[in-house]
Amino acid sequence: MDMHELTRSLQVKNGSKIVMMVADGLGGLPMTATGKTELEAANTPNLDRLAAAGVQGASIPVKPGIAPGSGPGHLGLFGYDPLQYQIGRGALEATGIGFELQPGDVAIRCNFCTLDGDGKITDRRAGRIPTEESAPIAISLRQVRIDGVEIFVEPVKEHRFVVVFRGEGLGGEVNDTDPQATGVPPLDPVARDAASERTAEVAKEFLRQAKQILKDQPQANFHTMRGFAAKPDLPTYKEVYGLRAAAIAVYPMYKGLARLVGMDVVGEAQTLQEQIDVLQANWDDYDFFFIHFKYTDSTGEDGNFDAKVQRTEDFDAILPQVEALGPEVLIVTGDHSTPAFLKSHSWHPVPTLLVSDCCRHDPHTTFSESTCITGGLGQFEAKYLMLLALSNAGRMGKYGA
Amino acid sequence: MDMHELTRSLQVKNGSKIVMMVADGLGGLPMTATGKTELEAANTPNLDRLAAAGVQGASIPVKPGIAPGSGPGHLGLFGYDPLQYQIGRGALEATGIGFELQPGDVAIRCNFCTLDGDGKITDRRAGRIPTEESAPIAISLRQVRIDGVEIFVEPVKEHRFVVVFRGEGLGGEVNDTDPQATGVPPLDPVARDAASERTAEVAKEFLRQAKQILKDQPQANFHTMRGFAAKPDLPTYKEVYGLRAAAIAVYPMYKGLARLVGMDVVGEAQTLQEQIDVLQANWDDYDFFFIHFKYTDSTGEDGNFDAKVQRTEDFDAILPQVEALGPEVLIVTGDHSTPAFLKSHSWHPVPTLLVSDCCRHDPHTTFSESTCITGGLGQFEAKYLMLLALSNAGRMGKYGA
Repeated sequence: MDMHELTRSLQVKNGSKIVMMVADGLGGLPMTATGKTELEAANTPNLDRLAAAGVQGASIPVKPGIAPGSGPGHLGLFGYDPLQYQIGRGALEATGIGFELQPGDVAIRCNFCTLDGDGKITDRRAGRIPTEESAPIAISLRQVRIDGVEIFVEPVKEHRFVVVFRGEGLGGEVNDTDPQATGVPPLDPVARDAASERTAEVAKEFLRQAKQILKDQPQANFHTMRGFAAKPDLPTYKEVYGLRAAAIAVYPMYKGLARLVGMDVVGEAQTLQEQIDVLQANWDDYDFFFIHFKYTDSTGEDGNFDAKVQRTEDFDAILPQVEALGPEVLIVTGDHSTPAFLKSHSWHPVPTLLVSDCCRHDPHTTFSESTCITGGLGQFEAKYLMLLALSNAGRMGKYGA
Repeated sequence: MDMHELTRSLQVKNGSKIVMMVADGLGGLPMTATGKTELEAANTPNLDRLAAAGVQGASIPVKPGIAPGSGPGHLGLFGYDPLQYQIGRGALEATGIGFELQPGDVAIRCNFCTLDGDGKITDRRAGRIPTEESAPIAISLRQVRIDGVEIFVEPVKEHRFVVVFRGEGLGGEVNDTDPQATGVPPLDPVARDAASERTAEVAKEFLRQAKQILKDQPQANFHTMRGFAAKPDLPTYKEVYGLRAAAIAVYPMYKGLARLVGMDVVGEAQTLQEQIDVLQANWDDYDFFFIHFKYTDSTGEDGNFDAKVQRTEDFDAILPQVEALGPEVLIVTGDHSTPAFLKSHSWHPVPTLLVSDCCRHDPHTTFSESTCITGGLGQFEAKYLMLLALSNAGRMGKYGA
């Protein structure tokens, strides 16, 4: 049975509030064999106090040994099996720049490229043309007109931009046109199923017009299309959990991921303190709040151990303001680990903390990688965290009589 | 999604080496309520040192409470879901005696039996005729000739031998001819699907000729056929993991299991020291090494606690030679537990140790049944061990963006 069949059938409504604080890339590694992790090195009096009051565990984002991207990492936390629900590359790229995909849309990642006189690719990234030059060129492609299809073109960065087709009967199963090599011409878009034939035709016409528009560009005189993807069909928080859910994030990617599961994106916060202000301002209007903190991940990606420690302490310092609102369930977790040692997302389980008045606390009085593995939540797949959140909030009834 | 779809799509190639040391039947039990297990009683300074440097956990071979045979035990360690992939009895028997099955082969376990004058079975095992008598009788069946089919007959032990049919269009779905009773004649081979009709015909003809050849034998004057099985269709290590894999084992069964997943069987080692010599000699030619140590299992099966302790110490003593080669990932595990107390394979989780420079070590400084349950790897299904090995070796990319 799908977990959402359960959560749908067992929904209980009450006035409880659930706050999920996601410190992106929270888990880490020591830099030396005998060292501490970032979280262990950080001074985190609030997390430790919450650890004493609550229960902790080690969240496995996907499966043991799998390092997830932000998409599957967050889907797991939101309670959507990240192996069952997949967000195509184009849809994730559009989501990441804040484009609001609608059902039926097809999103495509595009790269400017350079063609020679024979139409063969000489540079698959058009010399990594700077964003300030490439953005106006991408915008010039908004001239393209195709009958029956609404077209969106959004610059991203350097040679990258996103195209979205909106219309009837557009499937997302179309092959990349990037041949992954130079000295050969780009490929034609080819549908992999009947439902995507129209998409392939539209893409072909788009490319035909784009070639005309771009023909005088010195570097970006054409573009490839990759990662065709329809909007993923994810059931909403409202439907599967009965929750009015709000997302408070700074970066477009996380706002976009939250929108995909039907959360309202609230506020315009640019700092963690502003995120908390938005939380306070919207407290009465929602049952569930997802608060995303980016910098534990970005400092980890940079390999900057000390900066990650500092950002962890910043995150810790804000927690009393969240506690003061009196949520029935407060969760602190991450979508994956990002050890500064590896400078990348990793597969290691993520320290995860849950505090409620009925959470059966464990003996731990600190919160870290080494304590969470023997915490009361054990090691568990992230997709189960929402079930724990709902039960601790009294929002899920008994299964079976 | 199948785990191998993931590992295929996320493969990263690098120069790292992974060594998986399998001490067969590694986990144990105390002989008395207050006693130690074999592993706890053994003096294992090297395992303890590795425990301090690495991370441990408890590997569940199949599912909690399931005691596996060698086949599913090893398939799990190799990363093949042992409930999804099954090795038919005939194929396992052939594999166990070192017969190299080819795609399309059908292997059959045969038992000599005794028929009375009316063709009814009086002894289903032909008096458990000793191997030195039965082997030549089995070999006499190599006279059987059937058009279009290559036939192999291999003695096993006592009344048991293996027959393999090799040819076109031979399915593996044929019923046993052993009626599981005396006083009745053997059954005819009957196909369970259309693709196996030819196999049933070939088996019938084999039995007809065998009856002639055996008719003057006093005990083994006929035989039954059981466990018809095609070569299992397992994807290879090369394909699913991108690994050049070598197996270094003494016993035919484990060489055979390794061959089924596409490992090269290297060397002719007869002792653990010789296995390490083979490892050293082949170090540059492979990415992954499976080293199988039998005696922690066989002493457990014998119920000989002290001998299992001794064999565990022998295993421990060899580890520095493996470490000296500098593998990026070193794993010590077992395919299942074989407690001397039970004299059999058991369902208990298997102490499992992983050492790499990014394994997030846990606080343990010894390696045992009692420490592994609170180790950093938690309790996990054996089929995930290869994912952890690949990630720790830097050989698996991120899932999703």
